[in-house]
Order: sequence, then C-alpha cells, then structure tokens
Amino acid sequence: MQWFATDPLLSSDHGLDRGLQFGEALFETMLLRDGRLPLLEFHLDRLQRGCEQLSLPMPDVAGIESELRPHCQEPGRWVIKLIYSAGPGGRGYGRPDFLRPQLYIGKAPAPERHSGPLRLLLCEIYLAQQPQLAGIKHGNRLEQVLARREVDAAGCDEGLLLDSEGRVIEAVAANLFVVRAGKLLTPSLDLCGVDGVMRRAIMTLAQGQGLSVHVDDLTVADIESADEVFLSNSLQGIRSAEALLKAGSGSTMVGHWAPGPVAAQLGHLLEDRGWV
Amino acid sequence: MQWFATDPLLSSDHGLDRGLQFGEALFETMLLRDGRLPLLEFHLDRLQRGCEQLSLPMPDVAGIESELRPHCQEPGRWVIKLIYSAGPGGRGYGRPDFLRPQLYIGKAPAPERHSGPLRLLLCEIYLAQQPQLAGIKHGNRLEQVLARREVDAAGCDEGLLLDSEGRVIEAVAANLFVVRAGKLLTPSLDLCGVDGVMRRAIMTLAQGQGLSVHVDDLTVADIESADEVFLSNSLQGIRSAEALLKAGSGSTMVGHWAPGPVAAQLGHLLEDRGWV
Repeated sequence: MQWFATDPLLSSDHGLDRGLQFGEALFETMLLRDGRLPLLEFHLDRLQRGCEQLSLPMPDVAGIESELRPHCQEPGRWVIKLIYSAGPGGRGYGRPDFLRPQLYIGKAPAPERHSGPLRLLLCEIYLAQQPQLAGIKHGNRLEQVLARREVDAAGCDEGLLLDSEGRVIEAVAANLFVVRAGKLLTPSLDLCGVDGVMRRAIMTLAQGQGLSVHVDDLTVADIESADEVFLSNSLQGIRSAEALLKAGSGSTMVGHWAPGPVAAQLGHLLEDRGWV
Repeated sequence: MQWFATDPLLSSDHGLDRGLQFGEALFETMLLRDGRLPLLEFHLDRLQRGCEQLSLPMPDVAGIESELRPHCQEPGRWVIKLIYSAGPGGRGYGRPDFLRPQLYIGKAPAPERHSGPLRLLLCEIYLAQQPQLAGIKHGNRLEQVLARREVDAAGCDEGLLLDSEGRVIEAVAANLFVVRAGKLLTPSLDLCGVDGVMRRAIMTLAQGQGLSVHVDDLTVADIESADEVFLSNSLQGIRSAEALLKAGSGSTMVGHWAPGPVAAQLGHLLEDRGWV
C-alpha cells in the first residue's frame, strides 16, 4: 500500500503521532471503483461518530474529500485507507492544548473478491466489552491482529469473534448476518465490535425489500442452527459462510450451511447499486 | 519530546507502521537519571513478555541498549520513551511474512516530581477485561487517553480505574497500593491493567523489609477504608493519595487518607537505591 500524509510523521519538533503512541486514531477502509467511492457518505458519517466518541475535533469533510480526489482518478478496483489520527504532542496520555490531527491516505489494488463460501474459525480470543469504544472504527486493534493470526494458523478464511460473555459479535474484518425463519439477524454492537458501513447498507437494502431485520444477541448455538450465515464488509460486499470450525486437535466442524437465497438476493442488489 | 527512529516512518515503500494503523506496538517509559536508566532490566523484561503475548519477534536487547546509549549521556533527570512497533506492511490485520519491527526513542526533560498528596478521580470509563493483553504495556491506550481527559476535566491529579465488574485495577498512568492492617495490597492484573516496573520494584523492596505483600481483588470500599493509599510509576516513584472524588455536581469526596509510614519508608528505600 502506498501512503500519503498531510504532514510527514517525524518532520516536526512537536513529537510523534499519538496514533503510533496510543492507537489514538480512527480509520476507514473504502472501496474505490472506477473513480467512485460508493459509500463515502457512510464512511465519513462513522468517522464523525468516532470523533464524537473520542472527543477529537471533527474532520473537515470537504477537506478530506479534496485530499482524496487526486487518488481516485484511476479506473479499476482499489482500496483506499484513510487514517485520521490525533496527531503529535502531549505529555503521556494527556493531550496537547492544541490538537493537530493528521490525515493519512493509503492506496492499493483491491484484493481479489473471494469466490465461494467461507470457512470460519471460532476464535479463542474474545472481544473485550468497552461501550465507550464500541461501534466506531478506532486504532486500537490488537484483538483483531491476534484473531487474524489464529485464523491464519488454522488455515481458515475468516474468524468468528465472541465477547467475554459468549455473545457472537462479528468476524475479524467483517460483520455477521444470519437468516433464521425468514428473518435477517445481526448482533448488537453496543459493547464491542465495529458498526460496519456495509452492515448499515445491507440493513437498509433488506428493509427496502420488506425483509424483517433485527439487531439481537446471538449465541454460537444460534449461528449453528441458522438457515444462512454471511459476512459483510466494504471491500467484499457479502460473502456466504459454509462452515464454522473449532481449533484444536484436527479442527472440529461445529456448524455447516449452504449458500442461501437471502445472501444471493442482497448480493445482487449491492451489485446493481454499484456498492461493491 | 524529541524523537528518534531506527527507520523514518514513511521512508519505505513497505507501508505505514502497524503501530499507527492498529496500535500494534509496545512501549516503555523510563527514568534517565544522571546517565543511568535505573530499572532498565525490569523494563526490557516487560518488553520481552509483551513480545511473547503479541507474538512479536523478541527485540535484540543488546541492540536496544546500544541505540539508547547516545541519548543517555547528559546529567539531570529525563524521560526516555521507547516504542517497539510491529513495523510496516501486511494487508489489513494480517501481518506481512517478514515483520520489520521499528524502534522509536523519545527523550524529554522529566516532569517535576509531584509534591504533596494526590487527589484521585473515580473515573467513569472502566477498563475492559482482556486477559490476552493484560499486564503488558501495549500501544492500545484509548481507555487511558479518555480517562486522562476525565481527570483533567475534574481538576484532579490522577484517576482510579475500575474494571467492568467494579474491581479497582490501577490509576491512569500508575499502579495502586493500599495498606490495611499492616499489610500491603495491590490489585491483580490478570484481566486488565499494566504490570508496572515500579510496582514490581516496590513489591520486592517491601518483601525485603519483611512487609506482608498481597495481590488481591479490591473494591472501592476497600480503598475508602484503607489506612494508606499510594500510587507508583517509573517517573515519580511513590506518591501518596489524600482524596478520592466522584465527578458530577460539585465533585463528592468518597475517600480521604493521610500520608502514612509505609509509603514514606518505601519512598526512602527507592531514593537510597537510586531508583527514582
């Protein structure tokens, strides 16, 4: 990924970026498709909610858009990653009197879209419950880094993350949906997890189709017995899951599903809108 | 704070430091006193435990010491901050095949040693329970940044942090000790909190003095009824607390203590050893 920053990180005498010191940053990972950022408004909206939760100054949305523009001219599929950090300075955890947030823009070819259903690992690391950080896409992501290592070690495609009380929350880099008795269900993100942009888009689309959509607590048993299980994120859209595996001696399979009609229907709608 | 890095952050095509992207880093804040780093071994030991917990390659301790040496020649009291990050690269949360960890060294005059006992705020934000990250000094510190904002807003000196189940864990940038019936007690850090270098040093010193030292679960009521309450960290050594305040209408005082003999005795021992 090639990176651009509004200010070189170590150029000033003001100090090292608090993003690097404390993970004091927000980020957005966006799909760039033929010069368009399909869900840019949703991304900037989440960025603003993140700023409120972290008491960071609101980013200048017009300024961000004009910083993004020169990187969005090429045709094809790209990933644009935007990091909005608290910038340099301060003594320890205390912020400096005047924050100078920094904007970093990264660009890389989009990953290949995953073909075929996913094998999910039931991760051992759980998501800690922290309502003051839940929902937003902040820069404290060690849990996801460790979870991704578990997934790679088990040879799976993605991982299912529970919280400390056994509630299913999300995947490592995607949100989770299940279909049960014709209803679309997705976990509550009040205590942990990231409120994905594609999750919001899918909930809106599904409601528009007259589907019954519920945010609810889900257990592993609920997932195992679901009619359909699929993941969502901004780069890949919707991906159906076919199996849930538990690590250990020989990786036991604890859930199995066939790709179903709801995921297919919503996937087509996303394509039609040009959102994936 | 003036910063030095083994590699400039944005110099390579390999990408932006994962410390900035995900808080994937460890750090140590050390006192430099007249050319000596008094508890360097304890700091490097914790750094190594952090590497094990995060599956980062062990840092080359001799290499770190030689990087530190040129910054340690001046007399006087300084803070040396060392950040050991996962370095650049990887796609999303997945690490690159070859990690190139980065070492950042920051140096600044040490803060004035706080004279007089501290007023502590009972913080509203709690520490999330995450045993896979507990104890080590990692770069995911948004909870501490938000807690420090609470402390500043209330006009207090430091803050007392509980976990989600109401156990007292530590202060924002210090560990906590209480004295009760002649025993020295400090909270367990199995689920959250930072295993402070000065905490370890104090426990060792206290045991050497024949004091009974216990790691235990403590509630706010235990703190309120303690004979002595004091905080410890590498820069300030021991600081006694005089009051615990609850934010809200007019800041209610919920605990009050006089500086006591145990804190004074241990403080003298730290001075004698040249550890503060």
